[in-house]
Amino acid sequence: MTLLILDLAGIFFFAVSGSLLAARRNFDIVGSLMLGSFVGLGGGVIRDLIINQGVPLAFSKPVYLLPPLLAAILVFTHALGVQRYRRTLLVFDAAGLALFCVTGTLTAHQAGLNPVSAALLGVTTAVGGGLLRDVVANEVPQVFNPRGVYAIPALLGAGLVSLFTALGVFGPVLGIAVAALVFTLRILSLRYGWRIPLAGRTEAGRNAQP
Amino acid sequence: MTLLILDLAGIFFFAVSGSLLAARRNFDIVGSLMLGSFVGLGGGVIRDLIINQGVPLAFSKPVYLLPPLLAAILVFTHALGVQRYRRTLLVFDAAGLALFCVTGTLTAHQAGLNPVSAALLGVTTAVGGGLLRDVVANEVPQVFNPRGVYAIPALLGAGLVSLFTALGVFGPVLGIAVAALVFTLRILSLRYGWRIPLAGRTEAGRNAQP
Amino acid sequence: MTLLILDLAGIFFFAVSGSLLAARRNFDIVGSLMLGSFVGLGGGVIRDLIINQGVPLAFSKPVYLLPPLLAAILVFTHALGVQRYRRTLLVFDAAGLALFCVTGTLTAHQAGLNPVSAALLGVTTAVGGGLLRDVVANEVPQVFNPRGVYAIPALLGAGLVSLFTALGVFGPVLGIAVAALVFTLRILSLRYGWRIPLAGRTEAGRNAQP
Repeated sequence: MTLLILDLAGIFFFAVSGSLLAARRNFDIVGSLMLGSFVGLGGGVIRDLIINQGVPLAFSKPVYLLPPLLAAILVFTHALGVQRYRRTLLVFDAAGLALFCVTGTLTAHQAGLNPVSAALLGVTTAVGGGLLRDVVANEVPQVFNPRGVYAIPALLGAGLVSLFTALGVFGPVLGIAVAALVFTLRILSLRYGWRIPLAGRTEAGRNAQP
Repeated sequence: MTLLILDLAGIFFFAVSGSLLAARRNFDIVGSLMLGSFVGLGGGVIRDLIINQGVPLAFSKPVYLLPPLLAAILVFTHALGVQRYRRTLLVFDAAGLALFCVTGTLTAHQAGLNPVSAALLGVTTAVGGGLLRDVVANEVPQVFNPRGVYAIPALLGAGLVSLFTALGVFGPVLGIAVAALVFTLRILSLRYGWRIPLAGRTEAGRNAQP
Repeated sequence: MTLLILDLAGIFFFAVSGSLLAARRNFDIVGSLMLGSFVGLGGGVIRDLIINQGVPLAFSKPVYLLPPLLAAILVFTHALGVQRYRRTLLVFDAAGLALFCVTGTLTAHQAGLNPVSAALLGVTTAVGGGLLRDVVANEVPQVFNPRGVYAIPALLGAGLVSLFTALGVFGPVLGIAVAALVFTLRILSLRYGWRIPLAGRTEAGRNAQP
């Protein structure tokens, strides 16, 4: 039950980020609903396909369609601060990331995956939604933006959930605490522009640009 | 049998749209066959993965490979009106959309999904192929183009098929009628430039562009 | 056992191509690890989802995570010739392509697919990783680049593996020979700029560009 609520909340946050991006790109309301659904439900569908436990939840429980619908309505009616699309988008994206690395890892554990694979699937679920959003809207995904950290908080969160579950001490409170930690790290990294080393020599990289 | 024929026809129409886009972007004939196959077969593979009924049809029945092959040959030999790539592409895309929302919903019903989820899977199948085509060719997907309606006719068609099937009155004639309705709505919306409201404030959206 | 080693080697080569692209685009080290994993493991995950034999190997055997990690470290420490990102990237991509069309086809055979479908899945696996890499990094995929041939060597390799397996004469030596042939054809096609006919009239294609 807790898992379902956290999952639906994560879908809602990611769906808002998709609908906000749709608004920023001047898509229409149906495009907004489509992109919100894609972002909110995409990561979970990939997760459910990988754990191979029947039809993905988004396609077997119609309740999963409500968060994207609500997100599209809220964005359309300007109930959210749409003056600052980009900043609001990143906050909702961070909340989705935080919840999905927890619910994704938990779902994988319940499906019997080993702790390492469960954490990996948690990260895949968390990063996957935002990746789909940015790829479909033809932008370079947030996960590859060198400003701020994105995958590291998700890896940490998924690792902690996997560890706590393996130790048998995981519960709703710990789950919410881990999500809050992931969210806080992500937001702080954006606020203060944390950076980690680049993948290659910067100069060579710039010169070799095609 | 009717389902198989409609499915193959839908694959052919989507594959033509993919091969036409390949021609417009100056891809070679193998790139054309690849993009056509990807567009024609991609939506159905996603559908078959989600309903979780064994190996997707495109990978178990080699007959599914013929429509993309035929499409690539027709585009290469200019048997289709390639002077007006873009217009021809949109017509074939509309035909694929119309057939796939019918066959996708039907397949989902036969796999035992509830009516709401079956309609959702029909829309996913119908929209999925064109989305893959545009994402892979690095363009903003048609479904997000505010000129004309795209997802709405597919939603309507999938909803009607789901309703008729739930009522037990669905048959080949009704299926073709629904596909014709979806196709007509999509083409009319392009012809007359139908628009629905944007997802957010237009001005704010334009100013907030990065 | 041979299959596992070839599979891990293919993952490593594709992961290096992903991490090199990440370096060229000035992503950070985590973005490099993410893109490398995505490229190296993505094709195989799609393959395993399609053959529907339980949880994909990348999510059930943690050893599959080592090649992307090694690739990201090698690129970060400049152990590979990063002066010429693009050329090095294409060589590693060719090696991944060569190995994946062999291992993908073999895996599909072992899962009971017919020879035609097995070869198709081999090509899908081989082309899929590089496609994901380029789509996610917002570039037009190599498979659609009219300079050099890409899918043809993969089709040839997958077809040969399928034929040899159907004839019951396939073994490790033949597998490595086929991979070497695919790799050589790909590299020669790049070196000498082989071209095959375009998908449509070039002039019309250029004029119709939006």
